[in-house]
Amino acid sequence: MSILVVGSVAFDSVTTPFGEADDVLGGSASYFSTSASFFTDVQLVAVIGEDFPQQHIDFLTSRNIDLSGLQTSPGKTFRWKGRYEYDLNEAHTLDTQLNVFESFKPQLPENFRDAEYVFLANIDPELQLDVLQQVRNPKFIACDTMNFWIDGKREELIRTLGKVDILIINEAEVRQLAEEPNLIKAAQIVRGFGPRTLVVKRGEYGILMFSEGSTFAAPAYPLDEVFDPTGAGDTFAGGFVGYLAATRNLDEANMRKATVFGTVMASFTVEKFSLDRLKELDHRDISDRYRKIKLLTDFADLDG
Amino acid sequence: MSILVVGSVAFDSVTTPFGEADDVLGGSASYFSTSASFFTDVQLVAVIGEDFPQQHIDFLTSRNIDLSGLQTSPGKTFRWKGRYEYDLNEAHTLDTQLNVFESFKPQLPENFRDAEYVFLANIDPELQLDVLQQVRNPKFIACDTMNFWIDGKREELIRTLGKVDILIINEAEVRQLAEEPNLIKAAQIVRGFGPRTLVVKRGEYGILMFSEGSTFAAPAYPLDEVFDPTGAGDTFAGGFVGYLAATRNLDEANMRKATVFGTVMASFTVEKFSLDRLKELDHRDISDRYRKIKLLTDFADLDG
Repeated sequence: MSILVVGSVAFDSVTTPFGEADDVLGGSASYFSTSASFFTDVQLVAVIGEDFPQQHIDFLTSRNIDLSGLQTSPGKTFRWKGRYEYDLNEAHTLDTQLNVFESFKPQLPENFRDAEYVFLANIDPELQLDVLQQVRNPKFIACDTMNFWIDGKREELIRTLGKVDILIINEAEVRQLAEEPNLIKAAQIVRGFGPRTLVVKRGEYGILMFSEGSTFAAPAYPLDEVFDPTGAGDTFAGGFVGYLAATRNLDEANMRKATVFGTVMASFTVEKFSLDRLKELDHRDISDRYRKIKLLTDFADLDG
Repeated sequence: MSILVVGSVAFDSVTTPFGEADDVLGGSASYFSTSASFFTDVQLVAVIGEDFPQQHIDFLTSRNIDLSGLQTSPGKTFRWKGRYEYDLNEAHTLDTQLNVFESFKPQLPENFRDAEYVFLANIDPELQLDVLQQVRNPKFIACDTMNFWIDGKREELIRTLGKVDILIINEAEVRQLAEEPNLIKAAQIVRGFGPRTLVVKRGEYGILMFSEGSTFAAPAYPLDEVFDPTGAGDTFAGGFVGYLAATRNLDEANMRKATVFGTVMASFTVEKFSLDRLKELDHRDISDRYRKIKLLTDFADLDG
């Protein structure tokens, strides 16, 4: 089953303690769709400027990503510039140029309106809601958001969350959205806004997934070379939703496997700048790392 | 098999967002030995002042903790005063009065010198080494330390680590000790100082255990009421070493079970001030929570 994703396609300029990259392919929809493409087909909706090079189009197309919803607008592509210190959990934004993204109005091509699996990447919650109104009969809706929208468009965001099955956000944002410092209580409050499942991203500490009557903890894969954390969250979401769409199974056991596949994909992304590591990845790499995370977390039953 | 622990017995005054406690029983050796006492017998070496009340002696004795190495010195007992904000991972020290602890010279009673399992809590690394010289034929030595000793007695600490099997310290301290920001590389460096296993405490994010050829990740138990984190690390160590000593088995699978038992014990300690939660605990509570952590982390094999 293919997935519809709506988000950003961007140029990133990133400095880390290990190097720098200028104007490389980035954006939530790029990371999400490339990651998901290892599991299923993806339909991408985003906007680019006239400066967007053909090589990136060719790459995304080579991953079987349907770009018929990728609009080109007059002007320049969205640009983000950031820096990481040794604490790679925190990005310091140096510059944001929204450019064509500022007036982005997602328009779904007719054949995208039958999407059953939908991922709303981190965009204005009003646009997220607008996208949902264009989809005829979605079976599964996941979304992301960020502190900027929690602060500035809280009511609109909560309205969007009322229509969403799964919210995938980071730890600080859960606390901020719930206005509650304890994460477990905060998760309960956020689930009360609508999403039956809340997936909390904790960077190098992994994932906590809260569902009805069940909590699941997955560690991040321990890496001795974290090169650039940019896109890790969207890559996680791509692997997570990608696996769920491919298997068409939303029970708790399968959601847990999906979480681990998301973790696997994110662990590859951070090994190089941009999508460089995902570009060279194959299915065997993914399976191998899944098995390693199983070994990393395995311990005996009480009487084992 | 009983465990010898050398550390502090103290009065703590703690303020958290949820309440405050004054001059309650604390100290690394108190937390460690009470926790370990649920698994095996404990021999405690520490110093108290003349102001230490009989009720605490009675409590520790009731846990089958051998107090023949608990020296009483003229003066007052070690006092620590601290505050936690909503980020319960970080203690802010308001006041430290070493009192009798300042001139503490651990003297092992004759029958303690045959200890096979030894835990050196966070004290001066020169004293840790001195304790080891008093033990005749230890089979297993674990120790803790802190930023203060890493900064101030680095050489002495590294000398002690050369004699130690397992080092149990927090994440920031691993990086500081290794002088390396990447935790995985830092763990490798610290293991090079001597300990064949490094157990990294990450507060609410759980544990990473690094051994030869194996890494194990265990989450913390998610709690909706973390009342007071004081003593969580020593309580973890008590459960961990306690289980290992009780089972006399140091293979990887058993070390992983021990890590989970340590996690279980720490999760109880933080639910109330001081040792209050451990005082009311029974073995069934421990088993139940072990099983809950198993459920929390369980996911299927790749082909499962």
